[in-house]
Amino acid sequence: MDDAEFRRTRRRELVDDRVSGASQLARQALDSLAEFAGSCAADEPATLRAALLDFAEELQYTRPNMAPIHNLVQRWSDRVEALPDDDPAGFRRAAAEAAQELSDASVRAVEEVAAHTAALVGADATVITHSMSSTVHASFRLLARRGVRAIVSESRPGLEGRDQARQLDHLGIPVDFITDAELGHFSGHADVALVGADMLLADGALVNKAGTYLLALAARDRGIPFYVCCESFKQAPHGSTGFDLEAADPAELDAPRGRQITPHNVYFDITPARLIDARVTEDGVTRAGDAASS
Amino acid sequence: MDDAEFRRTRRRELVDDRVSGASQLARQALDSLAEFAGSCAADEPATLRAALLDFAEELQYTRPNMAPIHNLVQRWSDRVEALPDDDPAGFRRAAAEAAQELSDASVRAVEEVAAHTAALVGADATVITHSMSSTVHASFRLLARRGVRAIVSESRPGLEGRDQARQLDHLGIPVDFITDAELGHFSGHADVALVGADMLLADGALVNKAGTYLLALAARDRGIPFYVCCESFKQAPHGSTGFDLEAADPAELDAPRGRQITPHNVYFDITPARLIDARVTEDGVTRAGDAASS
Repeated sequence: MDDAEFRRTRRRELVDDRVSGASQLARQALDSLAEFAGSCAADEPATLRAALLDFAEELQYTRPNMAPIHNLVQRWSDRVEALPDDDPAGFRRAAAEAAQELSDASVRAVEEVAAHTAALVGADATVITHSMSSTVHASFRLLARRGVRAIVSESRPGLEGRDQARQLDHLGIPVDFITDAELGHFSGHADVALVGADMLLADGALVNKAGTYLLALAARDRGIPFYVCCESFKQAPHGSTGFDLEAADPAELDAPRGRQITPHNVYFDITPARLIDARVTEDGVTRAGDAASS
Repeated sequence: MDDAEFRRTRRRELVDDRVSGASQLARQALDSLAEFAGSCAADEPATLRAALLDFAEELQYTRPNMAPIHNLVQRWSDRVEALPDDDPAGFRRAAAEAAQELSDASVRAVEEVAAHTAALVGADATVITHSMSSTVHASFRLLARRGVRAIVSESRPGLEGRDQARQLDHLGIPVDFITDAELGHFSGHADVALVGADMLLADGALVNKAGTYLLALAARDRGIPFYVCCESFKQAPHGSTGFDLEAADPAELDAPRGRQITPHNVYFDITPARLIDARVTEDGVTRAGDAASS
């Protein structure tokens, strides 16, 4: 496989994966960069560095609504920029090590977020969630055997909720499995709503799988708290305006055909900060009242 | 086909039909009663009347969240109770005619509701709707060629939204077709939310396909009005408490298997009166402020 083919393959894997969460995909991007640092055909130091940075930039913009991909890859690029390049072999090794360190830091951050989240949710709670999040899953892992129950929606069209349900079942957590349309009714049976994030915006809003905004509205109407848990790598510099929500292949909807029918597969939605009762990062819990944002 | 088999077949058709709206199913129940009035084996007048009333009661409780079935069949039973039975042939004919008259009255009521609804929504509006409703469809028929657009959700698991989209396409109305999870995002692209009803409760709440409550919450949050249109046959005597929402076969969810996973297929949800901006019946429009209910 030549460099161009390697890059195309890895980029497509990132684009086509509609099941993995944003953090997992960010680590996958770092793995690809580490591997490319070893395999890239360029041997002149400046060309090698330019090729790595170019591939990094390509990956950064592959899933624009998934902030950790952008943020972790940017940190890697910053470090690669600063690496001495007098020794090409050492440069390749250091670039790969930097990717591994950032990936490890991301895993550690998820574990720290999970610890704070589990403490916040507490034992014996019924938790309603939507879509798939490795951070939510890590939190449930800490709450297993502590009387916690889960209500999980299927999350059309990708149906990541099925994976979430399977994984919670493996942890021994009882799961009520519902359609996305049932999120309103079943919010009345939960103590807390908990989701991960694909991106946190500068105005405090949340970008996550389509349907998250509906769950937040139902939680507020039912009088249960709505919590977001994610690593700070998920912070984006911009607010809710001036960027586009990612849309995927409308064919996934299997819509009826008709001259006037246009299927839409907008994968994400935006939940405004005012519907979020607490955000949990590796630094701890920020309740709505604590933050300056509204 | 003997009487018992006829009754079982017609009852099952009513149970298994997860696509037709409540009014349509009520008329189907009346058709079954008219047919049974002709075919029922009993020839002694009192036995014949008892058999018809017994079948009517059976149909009435077949779909407990669909008020028009109960209400229209009850009206038919009241009329059959009062029919003279000195002439068995005349009794059979009168019972069948009563069913046809009530069915015609239901169709007329739908047309009247549609006329009021079309006037309320007006030309050039983008209307977001959920699930399938013959009353909503009749309203759209009057708004076709008046610049109206529709946003239609698929309505899992029955996917009645696909039929709704096809029918609107046949009317020449442009349809944006979305998942139920996208209802929140796309409410921001609509001027008005409009749904039919399976049942209106005494406290002003609405029973309709699961997901309707989420659409009402999104409409309120987006600042667009949420309207319900239905015939007065859909009024139930009881409030939001003390009755069960119908659940259908959980197998329809195609949930992942797991010892701890329980799929739920609650077909309806309850939208409280406070989220409904106007109700439209054959008698006209009642805005939230006009009614005594909150």
